[in-house]
Amino acid sequence: MDFQEIIAAKRDGREHSLSDLEILCKGAADGSIPDYQLAAWLMAAYLHPLNATETADLTRAMAESGERLDLTGLPKPWVDKHSTGGVGDKTSLVLLPLLAACGLTVVKMSGRGLGITGGTVDKLSSVPGFRTDLSPEEMKAQAAKIGLALTGQTPNLAPADKTLYALRDVTATVGSMPLIVSSILSKKVAGGAETIVLDVKCGSGAFMKVREEATKLADGLRSTGKALGLNVRLAMTDMDQPLGSAVGNALEVQEALDVLQGKPLNSCAERFRELCLSLAALTLEASGLCGTHELARAKAEDALASGKAESKRAEWFEAQGATSLDLPKAPQRLVVKAEGSGFVHRVDAEIVGHTVIDLGGGRKQKTDTIDLSVGIEILCLVGDQVEQGQNVATVHAHEEASAQQAAERLLQAVVVKPEPAAPNDLILDLR
Amino acid sequence: MDFQEIIAAKRDGREHSLSDLEILCKGAADGSIPDYQLAAWLMAAYLHPLNATETADLTRAMAESGERLDLTGLPKPWVDKHSTGGVGDKTSLVLLPLLAACGLTVVKMSGRGLGITGGTVDKLSSVPGFRTDLSPEEMKAQAAKIGLALTGQTPNLAPADKTLYALRDVTATVGSMPLIVSSILSKKVAGGAETIVLDVKCGSGAFMKVREEATKLADGLRSTGKALGLNVRLAMTDMDQPLGSAVGNALEVQEALDVLQGKPLNSCAERFRELCLSLAALTLEASGLCGTHELARAKAEDALASGKAESKRAEWFEAQGATSLDLPKAPQRLVVKAEGSGFVHRVDAEIVGHTVIDLGGGRKQKTDTIDLSVGIEILCLVGDQVEQGQNVATVHAHEEASAQQAAERLLQAVVVKPEPAAPNDLILDLR
Repeated sequence: MDFQEIIAAKRDGREHSLSDLEILCKGAADGSIPDYQLAAWLMAAYLHPLNATETADLTRAMAESGERLDLTGLPKPWVDKHSTGGVGDKTSLVLLPLLAACGLTVVKMSGRGLGITGGTVDKLSSVPGFRTDLSPEEMKAQAAKIGLALTGQTPNLAPADKTLYALRDVTATVGSMPLIVSSILSKKVAGGAETIVLDVKCGSGAFMKVREEATKLADGLRSTGKALGLNVRLAMTDMDQPLGSAVGNALEVQEALDVLQGKPLNSCAERFRELCLSLAALTLEASGLCGTHELARAKAEDALASGKAESKRAEWFEAQGATSLDLPKAPQRLVVKAEGSGFVHRVDAEIVGHTVIDLGGGRKQKTDTIDLSVGIEILCLVGDQVEQGQNVATVHAHEEASAQQAAERLLQAVVVKPEPAAPNDLILDLR
Repeated sequence: MDFQEIIAAKRDGREHSLSDLEILCKGAADGSIPDYQLAAWLMAAYLHPLNATETADLTRAMAESGERLDLTGLPKPWVDKHSTGGVGDKTSLVLLPLLAACGLTVVKMSGRGLGITGGTVDKLSSVPGFRTDLSPEEMKAQAAKIGLALTGQTPNLAPADKTLYALRDVTATVGSMPLIVSSILSKKVAGGAETIVLDVKCGSGAFMKVREEATKLADGLRSTGKALGLNVRLAMTDMDQPLGSAVGNALEVQEALDVLQGKPLNSCAERFRELCLSLAALTLEASGLCGTHELARAKAEDALASGKAESKRAEWFEAQGATSLDLPKAPQRLVVKAEGSGFVHRVDAEIVGHTVIDLGGGRKQKTDTIDLSVGIEILCLVGDQVEQGQNVATVHAHEEASAQQAAERLLQAVVVKPEPAAPNDLILDLR
C-alpha cells in the first residue's frame, strides 16, 4: 500500500491495520517516507486520534523499527522505570540502585533534558567519569554483573519514534494522547523490560498541567501496556511544586546522594525520599518479589536505611566509570528571603524550571550546552509557615547578575499569603 | 507569529487572519517554512476547511507571493479563462482567438497536462515553432499588438501556490474545496485579468466526478472571486464523455483548426464547437462588450463563421513563432468497430483519458515526456444509434501493439445497449 493511501485513510477517520503502521514505522526509520508525508499523517492522527488497538499496534511497530535489547539470560524480574518528566525529578538516581539492591534487574535508557524537565543523562554527566554511552552489549554485561545499567538513548532503538517525535515537536502535534503513549511505551518495549513503572507527573512543572489530562495519559499508558503484554504500574504524582529541594544537575545528584547516604534532609528532600520509597514499593510488589504492598514497602525502607541501596549506587557508579563524587559547584550563591510572613500557597514548578534554564542549567534548544553546576535549592513547601526574611531558596549561579535575576524571578514563584494553605498531595494515584 | 502557532490554530479549528496567511505564503514561496510544517498545516486545513474570508485571504496572499502581471495600458476589458480540466478539452485553442477577434484583451497562463486531463501548453507544442515560454514583458507587448498572448506558467507567478500544490499532491490533501479554489484563483489574480470565465468540468473524466462536488467548487469559485473583486462567470459542463472527437495533443489542435476554419464537423466536434460558442457568449456578456446574452452569442457566431477568429488565430500563432501547421502524425491507425447494434449509453471519458496516456500521449508523472502525435478520435456520442461493425473510434498510435491494446480498452469505454439512451447535457449550468 502506498503511504499516501495510508494518510488518506487516517484523514478520513478510518482505522489502520498493523501492516499500515508497520509501513509507516519502517518508512520513518529508514527515511524512505519523506518528512512532509509523515507530518501530514501526524496531523491527521492528531485530529482523528488512534484507537486502543491502533495505539498498541503503533507502539509495537515503533519498537520493531530498530534494534531491541534482549535481556534473555539475566535474572528476572526485569524492570524499567519512566517518568513523564518534571522539575527536580531525580527519582531514578535513588530508585534504580534501591531496586537493584532488592534483587531486581534494572535496565534503563534515559534521555537528555529539554525545556523545564531535566534528563537523567545530564544529571549523571555531572559525576566525573560517569559514562552514559554504554552499548547494548555493555548494558547487558553490566546488568548481569551488578543488576543495574543505565545508558543514553541509542540511535538504533525505536528509530521510528525518534523521527516521529522530532516531527511532532515542530508540527504542533505533540499533544495527541495516543501518540504520546506509543512514544513512551515503544522505547520501553524495545528496551526489553517486562515490568514497567510509570510516574505520570501532573501540575505546572509537568507536560500535563491538569489532573484530567494526566488521568487520560495514565489510562492510555495502562491499557496500551496491557495490550502489549507488559506488567505496567502507574503512579500519578504532584508536579505543581518542584520535587525535592534541588533543581539543577549537580545539585540534584547531591540531593540523591544525601538520601541514599542517610544524611539529614530538609522537608523538601524528605518529600522526595518519600516518593522514591513509594515507587520502589510499587515496583517491588508489581515485579512479584513481595507478596503485599506492606512487605514491599518494608523491603524498600530497609534497603535505603541499611545502606544497601547506597552500596549498590557506589557499585553502579564505579561500573560506569565514575572516578569521584566531586561534583561541579557554581561560584555564586544568593539566598532568597521571604518578603512577608504567612503561609506558602504556591511554589510554581514551571517558573522554577524556567529560572534554572535561564541560569544555564537547561536547554531551550536540543543543541544548547548546559552548565551542570547551576541551579536552585528550594527550602519551603506549599503549606509551610514562613517568616519575613526567612531563607526560602538559594540560587547557585555562574555570575552575580544572573543570580540576582533568578532571585527576583523566584519571588514570583513562591507565593506567601496571610491565610493558611493546605499542602499539595504528593501522590495523586498509585496502582 | 511563529508558524507552529499558525498550525496549532488551524489544528484547533480557529480562524486565520490575513496576516497568518501572508506568513504562510511568504514562507512557502521563499522556502523558509519547511515542507513538513506546510504539510501539517495542509492536513489541518483539510480537516478544518477554510471559511469564505480565509479562502479569499489565502488567494490574495498566494497571488502576492511573487510577481504579478500588470496589464495597465492594454485595452480593456481584460479577460482570462480557466477550465478545471477534462479529456479532450481543447476549448482555449478556439475560444482565445475568438474572444480576441471580438475585441477583448486575452492574456492567459496555461499549464502542462498531468494525468488524464491534458494541458494547453502541451497541445500547442505540437505546432512547429510555437513558443510557450513568453516572459511577462513579451506577453504584455504581444497582447498590446494583437489582443492575445498565452504562455506556460512562470515560476515567479504565485510561487506559494506552486509549493503548496506540489505538497497537496503527495499528502492526500488535494480534495479540499477552499484549497482548490484559492489555487485556481490565485493564478488568475496574479495574471492580472478582471473578467474570469471558469469552466467547471463534471463527470468521469474530470476531477469532480459528481454534480454535487462540482456545484460546491463552482459556488466556492464564484463567492471567492466576488470577494476578491473579480468579475467571475461560471459554466459547469459535462465531462462524462470526452469533449469533441479528438483526444491527444496534435489531434486536438487539428480539431480546433477544423472548427476555426469552418471545416465539416462530425457530431462530436459539433458538440465541442457549441461549447466554444457558449463560453464565448458568456465571456462577451460578462466583459460588458455585449448588452445581452443573445447579442453576445450572435457576435461570437459571427466571429467564428466569418473567419475573423481564424485570422486572429493565424496572427496569434505567427506572433508566438509558429512556422507551419504541419502537425506530427502517428504512423499507426486502427479503426474500432462497434461489437453490436443499439444505442450508445456511455463513452467513458476516464477510460479514454487513460488509454491516451498508455499510448504515450499523456503523463503519469510530471517528468514523463509525451508523444504529441498519438491519441484517439471518438466518433459517437451518448444517445447515438450505432450498427454492429460501425466505426466508433480511431486509434492513432506509434506501434501496432499499443494500437491493438488501446482498441480493446476503448470497447470497454463505449457501452452499447439495445434500449435507447438519452444524450448527456453538454451545459449543466451557465451564469
